[in-house]
Amino acid sequence: METTNGALNRKLKMALIGGGQGSFIGRVHATAAILDNRAELVAGALSSNPEKAKASAPAYDIKPDRAYGSVEELVEKERALPEGERVDFVSIATPNHTHYPIAKTCLEAGFNVICDKPMTFDLEEAEQLAKLVEQSEPVFALSHNYTGYPLVRQAREMIASGMLGEIQAVRANYIQGWLRTRLEDDEVKQAAWRTDPTKSGAAGAFGDIATHAYNLGRFMTGLLPSQIACNLKTFVDGRKLDDYGHAVIRYQNGALGTVTASQISHGRENDLSIEIDGTKGALQWRQENPNEMIVRKNGEPHAIYTRDPNAPFMMETAAASCRLPSGHPEAFFEAFANVYRAAYDAMIARATGEAFERTDTLYPNVYDGVEGMKFISQSVASNRENGSWVDFAYEKARR
Amino acid sequence: METTNGALNRKLKMALIGGGQGSFIGRVHATAAILDNRAELVAGALSSNPEKAKASAPAYDIKPDRAYGSVEELVEKERALPEGERVDFVSIATPNHTHYPIAKTCLEAGFNVICDKPMTFDLEEAEQLAKLVEQSEPVFALSHNYTGYPLVRQAREMIASGMLGEIQAVRANYIQGWLRTRLEDDEVKQAAWRTDPTKSGAAGAFGDIATHAYNLGRFMTGLLPSQIACNLKTFVDGRKLDDYGHAVIRYQNGALGTVTASQISHGRENDLSIEIDGTKGALQWRQENPNEMIVRKNGEPHAIYTRDPNAPFMMETAAASCRLPSGHPEAFFEAFANVYRAAYDAMIARATGEAFERTDTLYPNVYDGVEGMKFISQSVASNRENGSWVDFAYEKARR
Amino acid sequence: METTNGALNRKLKMALIGGGQGSFIGRVHATAAILDNRAELVAGALSSNPEKAKASAPAYDIKPDRAYGSVEELVEKERALPEGERVDFVSIATPNHTHYPIAKTCLEAGFNVICDKPMTFDLEEAEQLAKLVEQSEPVFALSHNYTGYPLVRQAREMIASGMLGEIQAVRANYIQGWLRTRLEDDEVKQAAWRTDPTKSGAAGAFGDIATHAYNLGRFMTGLLPSQIACNLKTFVDGRKLDDYGHAVIRYQNGALGTVTASQISHGRENDLSIEIDGTKGALQWRQENPNEMIVRKNGEPHAIYTRDPNAPFMMETAAASCRLPSGHPEAFFEAFANVYRAAYDAMIARATGEAFERTDTLYPNVYDGVEGMKFISQSVASNRENGSWVDFAYEKARR
Amino acid sequence: METTNGALNRKLKMALIGGGQGSFIGRVHATAAILDNRAELVAGALSSNPEKAKASAPAYDIKPDRAYGSVEELVEKERALPEGERVDFVSIATPNHTHYPIAKTCLEAGFNVICDKPMTFDLEEAEQLAKLVEQSEPVFALSHNYTGYPLVRQAREMIASGMLGEIQAVRANYIQGWLRTRLEDDEVKQAAWRTDPTKSGAAGAFGDIATHAYNLGRFMTGLLPSQIACNLKTFVDGRKLDDYGHAVIRYQNGALGTVTASQISHGRENDLSIEIDGTKGALQWRQENPNEMIVRKNGEPHAIYTRDPNAPFMMETAAASCRLPSGHPEAFFEAFANVYRAAYDAMIARATGEAFERTDTLYPNVYDGVEGMKFISQSVASNRENGSWVDFAYEKARR
Repeated sequence: METTNGALNRKLKMALIGGGQGSFIGRVHATAAILDNRAELVAGALSSNPEKAKASAPAYDIKPDRAYGSVEELVEKERALPEGERVDFVSIATPNHTHYPIAKTCLEAGFNVICDKPMTFDLEEAEQLAKLVEQSEPVFALSHNYTGYPLVRQAREMIASGMLGEIQAVRANYIQGWLRTRLEDDEVKQAAWRTDPTKSGAAGAFGDIATHAYNLGRFMTGLLPSQIACNLKTFVDGRKLDDYGHAVIRYQNGALGTVTASQISHGRENDLSIEIDGTKGALQWRQENPNEMIVRKNGEPHAIYTRDPNAPFMMETAAASCRLPSGHPEAFFEAFANVYRAAYDAMIARATGEAFERTDTLYPNVYDGVEGMKFISQSVASNRENGSWVDFAYEKARR
Repeated sequence: METTNGALNRKLKMALIGGGQGSFIGRVHATAAILDNRAELVAGALSSNPEKAKASAPAYDIKPDRAYGSVEELVEKERALPEGERVDFVSIATPNHTHYPIAKTCLEAGFNVICDKPMTFDLEEAEQLAKLVEQSEPVFALSHNYTGYPLVRQAREMIASGMLGEIQAVRANYIQGWLRTRLEDDEVKQAAWRTDPTKSGAAGAFGDIATHAYNLGRFMTGLLPSQIACNLKTFVDGRKLDDYGHAVIRYQNGALGTVTASQISHGRENDLSIEIDGTKGALQWRQENPNEMIVRKNGEPHAIYTRDPNAPFMMETAAASCRLPSGHPEAFFEAFANVYRAAYDAMIARATGEAFERTDTLYPNVYDGVEGMKFISQSVASNRENGSWVDFAYEKARR
Repeated sequence: METTNGALNRKLKMALIGGGQGSFIGRVHATAAILDNRAELVAGALSSNPEKAKASAPAYDIKPDRAYGSVEELVEKERALPEGERVDFVSIATPNHTHYPIAKTCLEAGFNVICDKPMTFDLEEAEQLAKLVEQSEPVFALSHNYTGYPLVRQAREMIASGMLGEIQAVRANYIQGWLRTRLEDDEVKQAAWRTDPTKSGAAGAFGDIATHAYNLGRFMTGLLPSQIACNLKTFVDGRKLDDYGHAVIRYQNGALGTVTASQISHGRENDLSIEIDGTKGALQWRQENPNEMIVRKNGEPHAIYTRDPNAPFMMETAAASCRLPSGHPEAFFEAFANVYRAAYDAMIARATGEAFERTDTLYPNVYDGVEGMKFISQSVASNRENGSWVDFAYEKARR
Repeated sequence: METTNGALNRKLKMALIGGGQGSFIGRVHATAAILDNRAELVAGALSSNPEKAKASAPAYDIKPDRAYGSVEELVEKERALPEGERVDFVSIATPNHTHYPIAKTCLEAGFNVICDKPMTFDLEEAEQLAKLVEQSEPVFALSHNYTGYPLVRQAREMIASGMLGEIQAVRANYIQGWLRTRLEDDEVKQAAWRTDPTKSGAAGAFGDIATHAYNLGRFMTGLLPSQIACNLKTFVDGRKLDDYGHAVIRYQNGALGTVTASQISHGRENDLSIEIDGTKGALQWRQENPNEMIVRKNGEPHAIYTRDPNAPFMMETAAASCRLPSGHPEAFFEAFANVYRAAYDAMIARATGEAFERTDTLYPNVYDGVEGMKFISQSVASNRENGSWVDFAYEKARR
């Protein structure tokens, strides 16, 4: 198992945007990025507040001179450094409304970008970003981290190989309970921006987590969407965005999908789950128990596929996404790191002048991001029209 | 634990309508009815084919002289017998389109009736039947058997007592795979009538199993429905009725419900499950593992309620619905028998001249049946109108 | 599916010994016996206290004239009745120390017997009973009810067919918590006699439940025992018999078995479980979730065998032991009834003059009972000798 | 959450001994060590074969000049480097028989040591190592990695706080299947040395995995051992060491423990599990699903404790051992890294001249290692004496 960076012959250098005190996902990016020892975190603009940005640096072992007070400063100063010393990529772990301007600045400066989802504040920004990425050289990856789980990739490969036949139904749920109360009033930073339409965008739970659930089905099945009908609810009094919602999706092949997202279900933690029905078989996977997937065929015992890199039933990408033998559980960080790993391969190809895939990538890409933003905008549009069907086709969608 | 029939001082006498060779549910009725030794099966009209009806009698230990060739014959001959010898009740285990005429005949003849669901062929019949029951003396119970599970009743009592707060979301699913292929072409009797719109009614999977899922949520929560939006699919080529479908329900209190039913999901057996979210707690139950229910509250360990008649946490009706101590699993037959048990109590009250509840009954009643038929008819209506919202209020619904 | 009694052409008539107020297992026998409508409970000696015996009869719908005050009275009066009217079999559901005299009396009077386990008070009685059964005509069955679960029989058939290869290890556990406190002081009848060495025999938990665990392994594997080493503990102060214990078994083929039994494990209900390792495969089953069994082979996905009478993978006896299609859970009563069903087949053969198997029976027989008593006596003997190995060979053991 | 190294103000520098091609655990050490970005791997003696040692270095991003051909060379060259540049600690990930000489060399040279378990080749070496550690300044930690799981630490704290009352029974199992066939003949490096008594020591499965199971119970309960009785088996033909075994442990307080280890159970992956019974409560945990622990008390719903750093029920050390919120699963690497994290705290204290605990450490220490070796040697001794009880007291054992 080769874990160094091949022809690049050095570690990639990372800058983290966001991730200051009270952040959750910044630390996740930092941990996932170095898991395989292929990168090191050397710079950051850890907060939009310059003082807080600098104060947060020691916790990441970022040296004071590379703890920048703003993205602009980061880009300017890093560009001035020689290649090999300056950062190779930035990871954007900030509230949604800032993704687009930051990504734009970084891409235009030539830095590779790994960006949190949802990709942008609205669909328009997303489409602009896609154009920008198409015209740019850098790698752009989106942290739909759940696609990094080995068994999620196994599902994708099994479906692509036809093992489940034609896919007819997708049921994805993402059930949480942490916003059952108005945490946004308790100075919980993550709750505050997520429930604020000026920062989160047009949707709450639907933007934050339903996008993951929808994306998971898309990643596994490759089914192209056609229409969506959606009903959103805000169950906690005084909240401005949805904290519960449900969408039905018509795929172009006639399949029917459903997506349910909740942030108000008592005691539910991070329960992303999916069931997929095909004409030849069906599967079921659940993020909270990610090392198992159940595959069923009528007349046969149910098959529990475990994450086993050495098993004959594991397909190529899935096996290559494992770091440990079966029974030694892998989890959230490793899946997140698998998205990074795929992006690194592309970054190294770029750096060493090799060709690399830009559309049908293993890592979620800018088109997944546009599709995700369309999922949000059309869900909100349908909800506004009393849950009626609205267009959800996207011609550049991943297959 | 008193299991005899109290003041009646004898076993109840049962006639079975339907249940001939190839039937599944007839045998279930016969087994459940006698589980507590409070009734005995003495007569039957086991098939609409008189010869087959008589040929099927030995398997039920029904004596030849009470193995009737038709419902009419059964009613006529049994009425002629003295009380105590003639049957006290009939169980209707026939295809849907025959429920109404049979029930009508039996009720008008004064016999108590336990009827399979869905209650009738269409909503109009259901409403007529409700009127008839209101004007009649006999007991009428509907075999929504899943309401008989002790932990389902526990859920109902916990919610009624306010332990989960106000209910905001209900997610019910009923996933099967047995109609993945066209069993209806293979002379599988149960598949044949269920997929035939002249026998099953306006819906396939939605009539057969989605009704159970919807009813389960209604039984547990007591929430009154307001509107429904539904999308139905027929995935198996050449089939005339839906084998997959999905509905969204708006309840009158603002809660949102979803019901998904599938008969085409490979390897799925009889997977009825439900999740309910309230402002104070949430619960989850699954029919295939019926002796456990998970109750969650933010900040507390998840609580697994097991079916334990001796535990302080078990509520009254739930505890009284158990026959075995915890860890000695109970299952499908016992739940079915619990519906019978509740109906028996009413029958005995009637027979001994005591007052008994006719509306808010422990057993599913005729109003549950009307609501179920409205669920079907409005689901089909919404589907016909491209999944738009249609009225689903029913003023006599169970609370 | 034929459920009547074939050539006998009538239901079998049952008498229940024991089962008076406060009893648990008497009601289980009564329910299991009639589950298939092949028998009816018509007589009883429900308590060793004649008044209580008569007072308990109405709850079983036993008529006053057949509610006897003693076993002797029951035998005498029933023998006087004509065949077809008198009881065909007695079920013994009394404390252990009374099993032998009751069984002896009934067998000598020509009645078939279904007896609770452990079979007798001590090994000597067991051996005498075996001799008696060998010299008698009646059927004698032992209610090792867990052998009645369809998937337990499936395991037995799979192993017998060689699907798991040679068996090398058996790990059986039976973990309960109900005797964590001294219920025997609280007038809980079942706790009182089970913890009283004059009624229960030489062992407490080991006699009551470890016997089931050991028997389960023996039934599934057919491995013959050779030696046993055992350590018993009494963790609850003042209790006279073991409430926790552990045994290691050497089988004649070189396999190693372990049996752990506890009645003092907080919150554990009736957790009988088993794991079996063979050279070609391994399996795992758990009584509290009896409709699933996991079968594993290196390099393959784990296989969940569900109780599915229609599945190609279900073997003959296992499929014939099912009453419901898959996903419609069966449980404790049905398994218990399967032991009855197998015994009924033998009783009917006897009654109609047909040959029937008396040694290698589907129901647990008198030799299983002797082996169980030897398991208890040798466990206690080993424990007395500081857990050293003692002889545990039994030449008549089931294969 | 402070993740830098406080007063040390730089990352710790690590050398890896072992971990060359074909190794499993070397990569685990390397990954776990850097997970929190508190250390960096800068040097190694990756194989006992100098050429292979150097060839393996690029995969770890170790520079050629610090890829040493032997431990001696590593120690000599690193000692010559200035503090802050030379390695702070070595991680020993080699076969068992080399642990002692390597640890001795490194400790005597002043390097902190993190050593794989079992700690040494035999008990005598272990006792010598303990003396050496007592007389040395460096930190010595043992990678009993399963103690690093947050819920394992939660169990320890709950038990220490008395929540389960007095502990009476411990049942630990470690079931694998990977040595079902003679992998040692297939040039699988890990299988080869583990089954070779000249490298692995006196025991096979019992040294490799039963030690983990025993240690887990000791870590959670603090119970001191008194005696052990053990039976070992070698089920795979031609193998020299045990591949299956079972031990019973008498603890000094009267509690009874059992440990079962298997490497020949088809399809079992890395199934370390434990059940603990106390007078006030009982718990159950399983390594393959490490984010859940079940706690039971009679009369209460079973409680599923999930790994939730923010929940009121989480105790101090357990909460501090989490890196992600609940529902975002953590797994094997994080647990391993938690052992490193605790050792780092001690290393930094040493480096900055602060006092630190050397006996009752959060990380497994040299005394745990001696106890583990005594577990192995006395298991083998008991097995040699036909499974009779032998002494297993160890006065320096962790409480």
